[in-house]
Amino acid sequence: DSKLKVFSLNSNPELAKEIAENIGVELGKCTVTSFSDGEIQINIEESIRGCDVYIVQSTSEPVNEHIMELLIMIDALKRASARTINIVMPYYGYARQDRKARAREPITAKLVADLLETAGASRVLMLDLHAPQIQGFFNLPIDHLVGVPILSDYFEEKNFEDVVIVSPDHGGVTRARKMADRLKAPIAIIDKRRPRPNVSEVMNIVGNIEGKTAIIIDDIIDTAGTITLAANALVENGATEVYACCTHPVLSGPAIDRIDSSKIKELVVTNTIPLGEDKASEKITELSVAGLISEAIIRVHERQSISSLFD
Amino acid sequence: DSKLKVFSLNSNPELAKEIAENIGVELGKCTVTSFSDGEIQINIEESIRGCDVYIVQSTSEPVNEHIMELLIMIDALKRASARTINIVMPYYGYARQDRKARAREPITAKLVADLLETAGASRVLMLDLHAPQIQGFFNLPIDHLVGVPILSDYFEEKNFEDVVIVSPDHGGVTRARKMADRLKAPIAIIDKRRPRPNVSEVMNIVGNIEGKTAIIIDDIIDTAGTITLAANALVENGATEVYACCTHPVLSGPAIDRIDSSKIKELVVTNTIPLGEDKASEKITELSVAGLISEAIIRVHERQSISSLFD
Ligand SMILES: Nc1ncnc2c1ncn2[C@@H]1O[C@H](COP(=O)(O)O)[C@@H](O)[C@H]1O
Ligand SMILES: Nc1ncnc2c1ncn2[C@@H]1O[C@H](COP(=O)(O)O)[C@@H](O)[C@H]1O
Repeated sequence: DSKLKVFSLNSNPELAKEIAENIGVELGKCTVTSFSDGEIQINIEESIRGCDVYIVQSTSEPVNEHIMELLIMIDALKRASARTINIVMPYYGYARQDRKARAREPITAKLVADLLETAGASRVLMLDLHAPQIQGFFNLPIDHLVGVPILSDYFEEKNFEDVVIVSPDHGGVTRARKMADRLKAPIAIIDKRRPRPNVSEVMNIVGNIEGKTAIIIDDIIDTAGTITLAANALVENGATEVYACCTHPVLSGPAIDRIDSSKIKELVVTNTIPLGEDKASEKITELSVAGLISEAIIRVHERQSISSLFD
Repeated sequence: DSKLKVFSLNSNPELAKEIAENIGVELGKCTVTSFSDGEIQINIEESIRGCDVYIVQSTSEPVNEHIMELLIMIDALKRASARTINIVMPYYGYARQDRKARAREPITAKLVADLLETAGASRVLMLDLHAPQIQGFFNLPIDHLVGVPILSDYFEEKNFEDVVIVSPDHGGVTRARKMADRLKAPIAIIDKRRPRPNVSEVMNIVGNIEGKTAIIIDDIIDTAGTITLAANALVENGATEVYACCTHPVLSGPAIDRIDSSKIKELVVTNTIPLGEDKASEKITELSVAGLISEAIIRVHERQSISSLFD
């Protein structure tokens, strides 16, 4: 059978190491650096001829750098006769640009899918896509894993008395429902609306949260505006304490300040995007998706179904 | 006939303005900014339905950012029903990664060509490609302009008495020959060789340079190592003064320091890559390629031959 190799690019070196260890292989030897003028230079330092290669790379910030690293790595592997080139993309950047919301907008999520195919990807493994429709942007096999079980298991161990799972918007209700099922809890929804133009939004809460521990769940937390406003609204409306969780901690701009000064007691995230030094907060707990991803890689490589990893 | 529009992205705003003025159109209205997490956001603020659109963008530093801007802009224009999407790329980044020089190297120049086609480019206009073979990486019409006449005209006006055109390496002899023809001058070649491994290179000069004004010509000057060593070797071997010129002033890392402390009297470059504040030197003269490019755009749009712009 053909050999499995795992390579890391620059977005998630720690996660890639953990994945390789779980699978029981050494990380593939390669260096990804820059020439003096900023052009990416990739050297693959071992033969990969005939191998099934897995590249671990999130297209997180710096997103354009990470996309180009990935495309150039795929090109190099293709020309070096890899048997299959499997992209492990814990976080899919540009996922929010997945439709024309206004005239003359690009659909960058589709563009990125086309770029990956053009470069020579054989398959893409992703986690909690912002919109599951993005799978259809590819003409390749996509394995779409979900982070809800990892987040749910963490909260399950806390044995909260009376808990409610909160979706911060209408788009996230399915995700909240999944978590609620696992924790045997009810759900609530933050129903934002703007009464008139240029009047600030009203945070209306649909569902009973009084006297309960609220856990807000989202896929991405970016500037943390929505989630921190939601947390404060929940406390004002009688929740006893508020936790928040998400799969992808983008946490850009004012996010950390907002979280630190919000009513959120603890924010639980995964390592699809590493937190790094500039995203440190005592409130944040990071869980690893390495177990989930390495299990999926092993099953894909052994031609087993991975569908049980979906829920 | 369909309407011609010129849009600028972030690499060469000044050059794009000059091109639009020459052609007699207003620059297309669009904003190219970033979301809080660094993802590129493009808004095209006027209808381009049915138009022939020209996008001015060099893939100079930050190269990966500039490539992604360009691809996303092409995607947006395509979805907004542009009739043709014409890429004006004064400088083609990654051009030096045009072959596998070592095992398992990518061929990023080919990858970029494929990415541009995938995004939806109709045609690409380029200037002094590092290797003319890169034209064959595309299955699109390519217009390949040359900067030698602009550089030659500048030196012609200096009316040097006794001048020799110098190629800094074997690869550049054709270019030096072209300039020499225009200035009715002889050529010389710097013939670098390394006598033994780990012994420094010897700069052997082929051709007569004694008592002459030497003009070194290259396509790209990046870290300026080659060109400054060449200049010093020319002076040591009897050239009375040394000028240097190139089309693409990459000028990364130690380039400016090296030029300032070298024997080069004046370095003449074009604005395919803008110099910017960090690349300031009293020795550098910048010439504009706007006239050449706008002439080419007008001829392409009016379906005239541009072949007279080649030499
Ligand atoms: N990186 C980004 N940061 C913030 N907003 C974005 C980003 N990318 C796309 N958007 C916008 O977010 C909206 C889609 O978000 P959503 O409604 O949550 O799917 C669209 O209107 C996009 O213009
Ligand atoms: N951006 C870059 N800066 C410096 N060297 C590069 C760059 N891109 C490619 N190269 C190397 O330059 C060599 C090709 O340059 P050349 O021989 O001038 O065509 C190849 O060996 C490349 O590995």
